[in-house]
Amino acid sequence: MEQELYSGQIPHQLDPQNSPARYVIGADIGGTNLRLALANLTGELQATWSISTVGVNEPQAVVGLIRQGVESLLRESHLPQTSLCAIAVGAPGITNSEQGIVIATSYLMGWRDVPLRDLLEAEFGIPAVVDNDVNMAAIGEHCAGVAQGISDFVFLAVGTGIGAGIMLNGQLLHGKAWTAGEIGYMLVPGVPEAQVERGKPGALESLVGGEGIKALWQRGWSEESSAVSKEASATEIFDAALAGDALAQQVLHLASRTLAYAIYNISLILNCPLFVLGGSVGLHPALGDGVRAVLEQRRARVQPKLISSTLGTQAQLTGAIHLALETAKSGRSAA
Amino acid sequence: MEQELYSGQIPHQLDPQNSPARYVIGADIGGTNLRLALANLTGELQATWSISTVGVNEPQAVVGLIRQGVESLLRESHLPQTSLCAIAVGAPGITNSEQGIVIATSYLMGWRDVPLRDLLEAEFGIPAVVDNDVNMAAIGEHCAGVAQGISDFVFLAVGTGIGAGIMLNGQLLHGKAWTAGEIGYMLVPGVPEAQVERGKPGALESLVGGEGIKALWQRGWSEESSAVSKEASATEIFDAALAGDALAQQVLHLASRTLAYAIYNISLILNCPLFVLGGSVGLHPALGDGVRAVLEQRRARVQPKLISSTLGTQAQLTGAIHLALETAKSGRSAA
Repeated sequence: MEQELYSGQIPHQLDPQNSPARYVIGADIGGTNLRLALANLTGELQATWSISTVGVNEPQAVVGLIRQGVESLLRESHLPQTSLCAIAVGAPGITNSEQGIVIATSYLMGWRDVPLRDLLEAEFGIPAVVDNDVNMAAIGEHCAGVAQGISDFVFLAVGTGIGAGIMLNGQLLHGKAWTAGEIGYMLVPGVPEAQVERGKPGALESLVGGEGIKALWQRGWSEESSAVSKEASATEIFDAALAGDALAQQVLHLASRTLAYAIYNISLILNCPLFVLGGSVGLHPALGDGVRAVLEQRRARVQPKLISSTLGTQAQLTGAIHLALETAKSGRSAA
Repeated sequence: MEQELYSGQIPHQLDPQNSPARYVIGADIGGTNLRLALANLTGELQATWSISTVGVNEPQAVVGLIRQGVESLLRESHLPQTSLCAIAVGAPGITNSEQGIVIATSYLMGWRDVPLRDLLEAEFGIPAVVDNDVNMAAIGEHCAGVAQGISDFVFLAVGTGIGAGIMLNGQLLHGKAWTAGEIGYMLVPGVPEAQVERGKPGALESLVGGEGIKALWQRGWSEESSAVSKEASATEIFDAALAGDALAQQVLHLASRTLAYAIYNISLILNCPLFVLGGSVGLHPALGDGVRAVLEQRRARVQPKLISSTLGTQAQLTGAIHLALETAKSGRSAA
């Protein structure tokens, strides 16, 4: 398998012919899947691998899965482990990218202050770098996606929940406590105002995130009212909306309006002209179209432009490979 | 008059003894007043001056008032015009600080793309610098106010309307079209969602800004219900709330909750730990107390801290003097 995943500028000065270590690993730890990619020093994807992470919570167990994936990728490509020069991993939670510590993930994994970079460097003996998965996707969009060459944009990942990766002047905004872009609790008209328990969908997520959308659907659902399953996923609900299901259209309209309001607010604050919509739920065209319709009605002084990610679920891996290449270029060695 | 206005680090390398030009002017063009300050190269305030701008709209007329103020300040301090080495001016609207162009002000002044920096340099023959008045105040708070030495904070100016000056990593965030921090139209629970006409208070301002607060008050007011005048100002309404007036308390509560929601949203997006509340309405202690009470109930992961400006209405002038000193230091000459 040879596929152009990374088409941005190659940030390294290494000589692939003479260096024994001429490959990098990018990885994305998702809520339900771990995905890995092996790329050469020009960023060309050599092979990918994935596995379910359901039921796997312990950091060392996740590192074990990453080891399993790395070995599989190397085997498939007939490469020794010494051919690897860096690894970058996207983590599903608040991450101190400077120290490579995952500060907190959702209740599903329950991580608190996990020194993931150190664990990876101890495991593989190569320099590792770690950041939040949404930030990783923003890097991916910046170096090889629809935001290529654009120094100021916001990547919105709508999946189970919602998060933003904010790029200002070509730099990710991490925030003083590494929580910048954690917009799941944002308060816009129409969201529930009551304080939300930690671990439950936040105010914004309760109307826009996959879990919130399913809950809304189930609250309104009755056997008479809809031909679609009560157990439908957010994207199936959006499909039903496009097919004319009235309840599904209500849910889609509410999600679209709420996300449009959030984008409008972020745009006012940052004056950032471009928003890239991604994530498993965000990639559904009905949501993008719905949000754009609301934004157009609003006629802001600076109209935010919303485009859908073309990298899709590859955005995180693309960003991870870019960061791994940068780390390889930096010449830093493992701790 | 000798008053310590500027107490930050002095950003110049000039020798006050040997340079003939050893003073700077800071100015703030407000909606109703123009204020000027004369300071020496160590930032010590020498004299201040102010005049009403009511009825004065034309850019050249405002520059004429600035000339009048400069002459008055120089006369008072027994200084020739050659003693001035730079001028910095805060403008009440969206400003391209790189080119010194005031892109747009409210309908009161009605400016569009006014090259204020060039007008000032032509008038005074010294280098001039121009920025938005809220950004000017943020600079003031950063160099000599409650945010002194703090690299990440948001200054909130609540006056007739509301605006934010956003400092990230010690740099003002201006935004791609110079509108970052123009949060008057932000959408939070409780604000009117209908599209607002340009020139009218935005959604957020309609509940938090001075003009919106007065309108709310007048809509609820009746001779029987309140001993306070129907024509009360926002700060008088807040005074009445503290004195027990029921309608005033409702208005104060709504303004506090709405502003707290806005701060909460900005805090989620930027993960900026400190907010400084200023502006004629924002400086009223009842509003700060009300907002803090709402924020404390909300228990965010990263709790935003809200403190009131101690520079008060001097924040803009303090920032202007700082920028003028930086301009003097840069050695740039007038165009």
